[in-house]
Amino acid sequence: MAWLWEARVNPATFEKLYEGKAKALYRVPNDAHVVQRFKDSATAFNGVKFAMIEGKGELNNRISTTVFRYLAAHGVESHYVDTINTRDMVIASVDIVPLEVVVRNIAAGSLAKRLGLDEGTPLRHPIVEYYFKKDELGDPLLTRAHIEVMQIATEQELAAMESKALRVNELLVTFWEACGLRLIDFKLEFGRTRDGQILLADEVSPDTSRLWDIASNDKMDKDVFRRDLADLAETYREVYRRIVEHHAAYAPGELPPAPADA
Amino acid sequence: MAWLWEARVNPATFEKLYEGKAKALYRVPNDAHVVQRFKDSATAFNGVKFAMIEGKGELNNRISTTVFRYLAAHGVESHYVDTINTRDMVIASVDIVPLEVVVRNIAAGSLAKRLGLDEGTPLRHPIVEYYFKKDELGDPLLTRAHIEVMQIATEQELAAMESKALRVNELLVTFWEACGLRLIDFKLEFGRTRDGQILLADEVSPDTSRLWDIASNDKMDKDVFRRDLADLAETYREVYRRIVEHHAAYAPGELPPAPADA
Repeated sequence: MAWLWEARVNPATFEKLYEGKAKALYRVPNDAHVVQRFKDSATAFNGVKFAMIEGKGELNNRISTTVFRYLAAHGVESHYVDTINTRDMVIASVDIVPLEVVVRNIAAGSLAKRLGLDEGTPLRHPIVEYYFKKDELGDPLLTRAHIEVMQIATEQELAAMESKALRVNELLVTFWEACGLRLIDFKLEFGRTRDGQILLADEVSPDTSRLWDIASNDKMDKDVFRRDLADLAETYREVYRRIVEHHAAYAPGELPPAPADA
Repeated sequence: MAWLWEARVNPATFEKLYEGKAKALYRVPNDAHVVQRFKDSATAFNGVKFAMIEGKGELNNRISTTVFRYLAAHGVESHYVDTINTRDMVIASVDIVPLEVVVRNIAAGSLAKRLGLDEGTPLRHPIVEYYFKKDELGDPLLTRAHIEVMQIATEQELAAMESKALRVNELLVTFWEACGLRLIDFKLEFGRTRDGQILLADEVSPDTSRLWDIASNDKMDKDVFRRDLADLAETYREVYRRIVEHHAAYAPGELPPAPADA
């Protein structure tokens, strides 16, 4: 894979396909793949709060890499292919389904508000929610009926996303527990492959998960930034330190530095 | 049914069990039943906008009476028992399931906003939504997973409400079409009977339905009040005039006046 070697050297020479709040995608010579770059920018409240946090991109690249490798080892495939430097991973090119698929174990954030529950109330069992990925609409909650009537996904695709999301939850509850962290809730995104299969995509990191320290109940995720509770980079570094301690087999180890302009 | 005769004379002598924004419930000697009184008050935006509209209570009592009789004649039972005066109907006593069950044929109101659709966009097929009846939470949209995990209703109850709501929609689309009105969407509530059955309850009126004139596209429902488009009592009188013209068999005809304090 000559293109992969070239990508390792400098993915920034490739054409930018898309830039979001926390990641960007770059074209590579093999069009079955793209480079996913993790940025240092942090945003919250639909972009109203913004900061650059040095080291966040690298930490999320490393954490997502470890999680995707752990999930693959336990039978859940994702778009993850390889990690090429501190900031970039190569992923399979998929069409993202415009849904945020949220799995919740314990009431927090918008669910606690919606249902009038105290933050920290355990749910009787994990639930899956779907939000419409549309900044201009404020990423509204959708029901299955909305998704179906808007033809955002088919019944079969929804069933596939729901069962994959619940399986990922089972695996990640265990993954994070080993790190002394309680998995409160997290957001996944899925993509359609060329042959019409639903594949786990995007990232899994403390940007997209709520993680509470089991011993202290401290928040160890992006709520630290949303609510100004602690230093975000310090918090993510501690999360990654625990990951390396408990899941070394899946962690990326030494990585070449990202291109200077990244 | 002596109590029914007594109720006809003056239901206001009975104990008030509950008072909501548009209706109140009174105890009657037979505890399998209650009196449902339709008030003249109109509210919108979760109580922020308020007015007294003379004649609204009587019109909604007459319209709901006609609709419930029409539904019963077409095989859909409800809590409706009898209409005892201009403002009061006797209904079966049920435990209300705290859900607003909304059926939508055409995008309007909160659905148009949520999905980013123009008001008036037809949906590919009718959909059912559930909102949590909780003023202090702003009546939030719920998914089936929320309802189930909060134990608001069982899977079986949800299935019963959904199929009844869709059947009511089929019947009401025809009912309103005969009156030259397009049924855009409407809200139902359901109750549990003593033997655990799900029964259609509450009211069906232009307070709880969006009705657009088929010829002119004029709104003929509470949006007239929400958006200050026309005189609400005049609008409801025209709706009821058409109902009497096209569905005389189910309309209540002459009714004794409601008690003076109503």
